[in-house]
Amino acid sequence: MRAVDLIRKKRDAGEHSRDEINFLISGYTRGEIPDYQMSAWLMATWIRGLSRAEIAVLTEAMLHSGEVVSFPELPGKKVDKHSTGGVGDKTSLILAPIVASGGLHVPMISGRGLGHTGGTLDKLEAIPGFNTALTLADFRRVLKECGMALIGQTAEIAPADKRIYALRDVTSTVENVGLICASIMSKKLAEGIDALVLDVKTGSGAFMQKEEDSLRLAELMVETARRMGKKAVALITDMDQPLGRFAGHSHEVIESVEVLKGRGAADLRDLSIELAAWMFYLGERTKSVDEGRALAQKLVASGEALERFRKGIVLQGGDGRVVDDYSLLPQTKNLVEVKSATGGFVAATNCMEFGVALAMLGGGREEKEDKIDPGVGLEFHKRIGDRVVSGETLVTIYYNSDAKLSEAQRRISESFSITPQQPVPKKIVRRLVGA
Amino acid sequence: MRAVDLIRKKRDAGEHSRDEINFLISGYTRGEIPDYQMSAWLMATWIRGLSRAEIAVLTEAMLHSGEVVSFPELPGKKVDKHSTGGVGDKTSLILAPIVASGGLHVPMISGRGLGHTGGTLDKLEAIPGFNTALTLADFRRVLKECGMALIGQTAEIAPADKRIYALRDVTSTVENVGLICASIMSKKLAEGIDALVLDVKTGSGAFMQKEEDSLRLAELMVETARRMGKKAVALITDMDQPLGRFAGHSHEVIESVEVLKGRGAADLRDLSIELAAWMFYLGERTKSVDEGRALAQKLVASGEALERFRKGIVLQGGDGRVVDDYSLLPQTKNLVEVKSATGGFVAATNCMEFGVALAMLGGGREEKEDKIDPGVGLEFHKRIGDRVVSGETLVTIYYNSDAKLSEAQRRISESFSITPQQPVPKKIVRRLVGA
Repeated sequence: MRAVDLIRKKRDAGEHSRDEINFLISGYTRGEIPDYQMSAWLMATWIRGLSRAEIAVLTEAMLHSGEVVSFPELPGKKVDKHSTGGVGDKTSLILAPIVASGGLHVPMISGRGLGHTGGTLDKLEAIPGFNTALTLADFRRVLKECGMALIGQTAEIAPADKRIYALRDVTSTVENVGLICASIMSKKLAEGIDALVLDVKTGSGAFMQKEEDSLRLAELMVETARRMGKKAVALITDMDQPLGRFAGHSHEVIESVEVLKGRGAADLRDLSIELAAWMFYLGERTKSVDEGRALAQKLVASGEALERFRKGIVLQGGDGRVVDDYSLLPQTKNLVEVKSATGGFVAATNCMEFGVALAMLGGGREEKEDKIDPGVGLEFHKRIGDRVVSGETLVTIYYNSDAKLSEAQRRISESFSITPQQPVPKKIVRRLVGA
Repeated sequence: MRAVDLIRKKRDAGEHSRDEINFLISGYTRGEIPDYQMSAWLMATWIRGLSRAEIAVLTEAMLHSGEVVSFPELPGKKVDKHSTGGVGDKTSLILAPIVASGGLHVPMISGRGLGHTGGTLDKLEAIPGFNTALTLADFRRVLKECGMALIGQTAEIAPADKRIYALRDVTSTVENVGLICASIMSKKLAEGIDALVLDVKTGSGAFMQKEEDSLRLAELMVETARRMGKKAVALITDMDQPLGRFAGHSHEVIESVEVLKGRGAADLRDLSIELAAWMFYLGERTKSVDEGRALAQKLVASGEALERFRKGIVLQGGDGRVVDDYSLLPQTKNLVEVKSATGGFVAATNCMEFGVALAMLGGGREEKEDKIDPGVGLEFHKRIGDRVVSGETLVTIYYNSDAKLSEAQRRISESFSITPQQPVPKKIVRRLVGA
């Protein structure tokens, strides 16, 4: 078998056999197939697509390119959630302590932010001392002690995905449902989980902006998880506007703690409870999703989830006092307000632009090597459907450097569509897949 | 400007500006754009295609990635021929001495064979001592002294094409008319020629098997040459069967000398005279193509072309005696005949398979690094339209190693379609483009 022939086959819209995909992935992982052949194959694949069978085989091949963790020593089910990412999406920080305090184990392997999206690892690292680079042994120890552990992708987990993802990022071959599905699922299935709740974002701040594309990705991921013997369900959720009131690393940690204290923005609170409820149900902790919802609400109300978050922070080397004293988190020196030039109702936002503006101000990565300023943030005062009067504040920008401030202001300002008619707000959970 | 954005643009079927193409080609030539980005762009380009404007700009960018030779010190026009390649295509060895002995200069930069096609350089190197790796200074000297010089692509000539071609070969991005046009024309336009005759092959032994694809490539190349101020014409010629009676390096040198002696296969002789006639006409040596044809025939009949070939061989370090004594060329120890299992008429051949079988026996390259056995060859006894009786010899195989002999025999045998009805043979020159 030769890589050049497999590239030609995909270029000509052919379907690969299991052996062919295994040859490509294992050859690439071993360094026998060079980057330039893999990138040509990725582009052919991006354009021609992958069949469901190919996606399943690709996921398995990437999964088995590294170690597959399991936790036979821990009682009960291990569950996780994965989000396809967006602006202000900090539910992992809320869910993990709720579900862990409810008695399930949450072994969570997360990613970093790039472009307009934030990453769970980066958010956690806003907490002074928090270490996301645990060894697999420490990951196992923290998980046992606390019911939750949050780390980044280690060298042992799905190394083929790690290398392929880096290559996709620089060759414009990211946004393809088959490749996305295989990338996400190969990592998540390596975590040793029994069940997975997928939060597939849709709308102007999501990678998949059209609901039909999000739906297709959701179906593929649920199908792939089930084929590998895992329980799975996907929620297609709104990313037409930021999730919650804040975007930016310190701000999102604070907002997460606020939700764990029973406060915070309603949309964020509702979605977090909803996702936790599904995790309880799929993890067989509750007999129904309704029961899971009630349990999640109880764990927040009792303060148990908040205490679990504090414990998790401390176990991963972080300063647990941030839960009570937000001033321990990085802050910015300056703030400025973006005001509305007209009156009316917020009809829509170009949500991705908020993420781009945030990254531009240092609160995200424009390039992979960029360092993040965790204090930088955006506070959103208006949601879709809200009434706005001319001159009213739409967004507060918290910043340190004003190098790109005026461009960021312009982008944020132009992201709002204000109309005379009040739109009908959409629900946060648009659809359920596999329920 | 970033390569990743240009890859995305072509992936989404966008059209590049001049600046964008220059950025890609100059960045790649300088080593700033890595192979893995170029290969992703090449695959996107292979699938999405290039506009005529893009092809023109790409050709120019590749041309100007290196040195552009010119010969102001030499009187008269400099002309060349380029063939898109096939099986048994040895016209360069015949044309160059005819046209040089007719008073024009032929600075010819040729390639090597790969896969089913042979290369002019490899054929010349079957002649003991023949050196195709001249410096540009020696190239110039030989051209001045002899009116012809045949070398390989030097490091100075179109280095971008050299690197991109190597990458296309291993990423299945070869057969695209835009990329082929830019590759051929950037090299040919760097040679310092005034006029170019293109021999675009069509049929079962050509890269472009369909006549409409050959036609499109021919039109693009003629248009590109003219845009750069060169005279050009293209002949679409038959490659549904091998050109001439022989394929294989020593055998093709011998057959070329035979044509220069006024003998040899009719199809090869006719096409060589036809191409030479167009070179004389475009090079303003004759007032018409008919006059060019008569001149070419006269130069063969008088022996002047043959003597010019001998002189060229000697000037490039080769043994000129091969012209009289074919036994000085590499030969094989063994021969075997492939016989027809049925009687009837040769209706068609799968011509590419002859080239593949030849390479398999060592008479070509299956991989770029393979060494060629120049003595290995095939002799074709029957042409399309010929009557065959059962048991009659179709092909004689001249070989040394029998490692893959039975597979080669099978491929050759299966390449012939024998039918009860006699087909109408097609003309060797199918069409003229730009005449």
